[in-house]
Amino acid sequence: MHDKLIRNAIGRMVPEKINGKQVVPFAGVGKYHPKGNHHGPRITTNIDFPADGNKQVGSLKEALIKAGLNNGMTISTHHHFREGDRVANMVFDCASELGVKDLCWFPSASFSCHAYLLKYLDDGTISHIEGSMNGPLGRYCSEGKMRKTAVLRSHGGRYQAIQDGDVKIDIAVIGAGCADSFGNANGVHGPSASGSLGFALADARYADKVIVVTDNMVPFPCIPWQIHGNYVDYTVKVDKVGIPEKIVSGTTAITRSPDRLLIAETTARFCDVTGIIHDGFSFQAGAGGTALSIGIFFGDIMRKKGIKARFARGGSNQYLVNMLEEGLVEYILDGQTFDLEGVRSIRDNPCHVMTSPFTSYNYHSKGNFASMVDVVILGATEIDINFNANVVTHSDGYLLHGLGGWQNCLFGKTVILPVPLFRDRIPVIRDEVTTLCGPGELIDVIITERGIAINPLRKDLIDKTKGSGLPVKTIHQLKEEAETICGIPQKPVFTDKIVAAIKWVDGTVIDVVRQLET
Amino acid sequence: MHDKLIRNAIGRMVPEKINGKQVVPFAGVGKYHPKGNHHGPRITTNIDFPADGNKQVGSLKEALIKAGLNNGMTISTHHHFREGDRVANMVFDCASELGVKDLCWFPSASFSCHAYLLKYLDDGTISHIEGSMNGPLGRYCSEGKMRKTAVLRSHGGRYQAIQDGDVKIDIAVIGAGCADSFGNANGVHGPSASGSLGFALADARYADKVIVVTDNMVPFPCIPWQIHGNYVDYTVKVDKVGIPEKIVSGTTAITRSPDRLLIAETTARFCDVTGIIHDGFSFQAGAGGTALSIGIFFGDIMRKKGIKARFARGGSNQYLVNMLEEGLVEYILDGQTFDLEGVRSIRDNPCHVMTSPFTSYNYHSKGNFASMVDVVILGATEIDINFNANVVTHSDGYLLHGLGGWQNCLFGKTVILPVPLFRDRIPVIRDEVTTLCGPGELIDVIITERGIAINPLRKDLIDKTKGSGLPVKTIHQLKEEAETICGIPQKPVFTDKIVAAIKWVDGTVIDVVRQLET
Repeated sequence: MHDKLIRNAIGRMVPEKINGKQVVPFAGVGKYHPKGNHHGPRITTNIDFPADGNKQVGSLKEALIKAGLNNGMTISTHHHFREGDRVANMVFDCASELGVKDLCWFPSASFSCHAYLLKYLDDGTISHIEGSMNGPLGRYCSEGKMRKTAVLRSHGGRYQAIQDGDVKIDIAVIGAGCADSFGNANGVHGPSASGSLGFALADARYADKVIVVTDNMVPFPCIPWQIHGNYVDYTVKVDKVGIPEKIVSGTTAITRSPDRLLIAETTARFCDVTGIIHDGFSFQAGAGGTALSIGIFFGDIMRKKGIKARFARGGSNQYLVNMLEEGLVEYILDGQTFDLEGVRSIRDNPCHVMTSPFTSYNYHSKGNFASMVDVVILGATEIDINFNANVVTHSDGYLLHGLGGWQNCLFGKTVILPVPLFRDRIPVIRDEVTTLCGPGELIDVIITERGIAINPLRKDLIDKTKGSGLPVKTIHQLKEEAETICGIPQKPVFTDKIVAAIKWVDGTVIDVVRQLET
Repeated sequence: MHDKLIRNAIGRMVPEKINGKQVVPFAGVGKYHPKGNHHGPRITTNIDFPADGNKQVGSLKEALIKAGLNNGMTISTHHHFREGDRVANMVFDCASELGVKDLCWFPSASFSCHAYLLKYLDDGTISHIEGSMNGPLGRYCSEGKMRKTAVLRSHGGRYQAIQDGDVKIDIAVIGAGCADSFGNANGVHGPSASGSLGFALADARYADKVIVVTDNMVPFPCIPWQIHGNYVDYTVKVDKVGIPEKIVSGTTAITRSPDRLLIAETTARFCDVTGIIHDGFSFQAGAGGTALSIGIFFGDIMRKKGIKARFARGGSNQYLVNMLEEGLVEYILDGQTFDLEGVRSIRDNPCHVMTSPFTSYNYHSKGNFASMVDVVILGATEIDINFNANVVTHSDGYLLHGLGGWQNCLFGKTVILPVPLFRDRIPVIRDEVTTLCGPGELIDVIITERGIAINPLRKDLIDKTKGSGLPVKTIHQLKEEAETICGIPQKPVFTDKIVAAIKWVDGTVIDVVRQLET
């Protein structure tokens, strides 16, 4: 009963159609030239909006009714509230009360708190999710329970899809820490402050109807107005848009694992030896424990050398803010804010700059910042011997993570994946990844606790590490070492049913996820 | 040989077509409902742009060639450099050297410095201008010398026209006080700093090709990035984008004319008596001598009452900045910056906020700020007995001014035109205005040195002034007083030839300007 499958340019079998719509198979990095024009939203007129600017309605349900919520629509939310988000759950509570069915939920990412929505996937209120799925929702999808095929996109791919009209958002619901009744909004003030609201920018610009929801309504003008009220149809005040302590959890801590610390230190040394850390360089680390440690080692090297970074890409946190305030980093270009120090800094420091997937990640643009970053530190669940990597499924076949900005960041000048050689006695480096999310040609270096593998394409890096004492090996050597310790890993068993498609940054389909045999 | 003329909803005869393109006659305020979708620019891909973000080319001419400059194209520039602009003149020097003809120049406004371009209008490099015309270019147009019909739009109308695809910009050339080689740009740093670059926003977003020109190229990232490099195709460094002392001339001074001072004081008293000046109110004055004085009188009243304004709309200048810094005004929402104090403030003070015609003035939106301002002080060259007003032609028939934000500001809650009863012994109030730019139903109060006329539609204001001692008269009384002193004014004599169309904020044609009989 399946659509015809096609082998794409990286050897994966992908369908011609997803949810009945024609798709383009991955054609290779930098090979697909898009045609056509950006999506042009319907022309609106101020005649239809209140002259005094007050668009506030009594409840989210009322706003959704006025926005024309109906069966089969695509409803978007953003993920800046992370595990503390209440907005998405409220939206689908309303939809359920109204008896609306078959909705596509189009979040910029989902979290465990959205397991609440499983009941609406079960009862058909939500037909499927297009967006990064984390944890329970991904597991649900892997088990073949979602009514339609999920579509996973990177942050930049999500912007691209909206901009190009691949996904038409009927109603965007934008939760904000602060807003005015006109719809101007930001994430830097109020009890539910989350920092930047950049992930909602595409939704505001291109959705048919836009609703801003806040628990902190201020008189016009709400400044800064990261979201412009001029895009907004209705505003709503609710008791709580989120659970503050889960929005900016501040729980991320530097790793204490000796293996992880070794990986972090080796990564920093590698960047030092190869000259990647130089005056005016730029980096993107991340917020995981290993990544935080790498940032701290970077700081030590910079202090010793008396140099500074021109900019660091956030996700920001207290450690990055410290570097900014110490003068080690001139600018933080920030996509999302992970703790209260990050929120304070992005609110008060003009050198801590809000970005969005438009500025940072959109591949159907005239360039973006991702390709200008000297070194990018990323994770992976699996890497194959051609440096292709997986970031969405585990080796047991379960879809448990979203793509985030991962694919977009692969365009950085040097991409390093610091990973343990094995996790729970399952090797990370394998002949073939379960799901191929990133082409190996964009992945430069794998750093493990037992050695470094440099992509043969990066002869420059191989040359620079010669005589450095760094434990450079081939990726085959690393794989064999892991297999010697753990044995050759079992592959998960899948049915033929495609449960999720993985889009590449240009909207083509790079791989699919299949239902697990249970 | 003319296209058929139609009487529009306000009684003016307008053509069916302008420059061969069908137009919609003015249908009344709030009567025209637009159809269709926003212009969607062509989808671009990062494949075609340098991965290191460096889009700098050797010269403006090279950038124009790469952008495909060709006969008949529409080329846009902004007016933030005012009388100090060198960019527009350089662009058409290049076009002339390249032998390109028949260009439409689409500036956000023109100034006397652009009289330089008359030679290119003469030799056919430029076929016509769509944009506010000030001084020599307007005179040239009035004399019937322009090859095609000029089109004048308000700042908001210009945004609307670009957004809706009424005008497709082939190449936007954006001069900036500061930029990086990727194209991020602002107007707050460098020798040619002009404050905001908001008038270039639509151009950046919707033009086919975008060129950023600066004399102050900084390393990526140029912060703030009011113009996002993601919209930009090429960047160019030139010696000078403008003449600094003419960009922020700082020459605007408070009026010393006793009549003008009386008008200013009466205006402030009127706003006090009617309760328009209240705690948390908002106002837009302007930068002329009378307007500045009104602002100062407002300040006195606010100090005396112990109240403050929630926001003031700029054009900003030292006087408005003083009010912000004194705490009389909480926010300046600023469209353009008129002096160095304004530039300093918008650069350093987060409560001095950059706006654009998108946020402030676009009528094909979901509301804008213009309608939320409590009181707006505007000028006019002529006003008729139905409160219709003219702002582009003088009573001698010459087109000498642009529309600026004037039409857009008419949507303010109370619109006051403080004008002298006559200028050079020519009455300002007349039976019929030479050119009808703003419908009387949106104009509330005329304040002259010899009395105040309140629009009969504003019964509330008439009631509030009763017993106030303010010299309230009918507009007919004011007209008669002027005619008693000056006599009944002569009307200019026009040919049938339409030399310019005046668009309303919704893109419809409210009036035309005809060639002067000479």
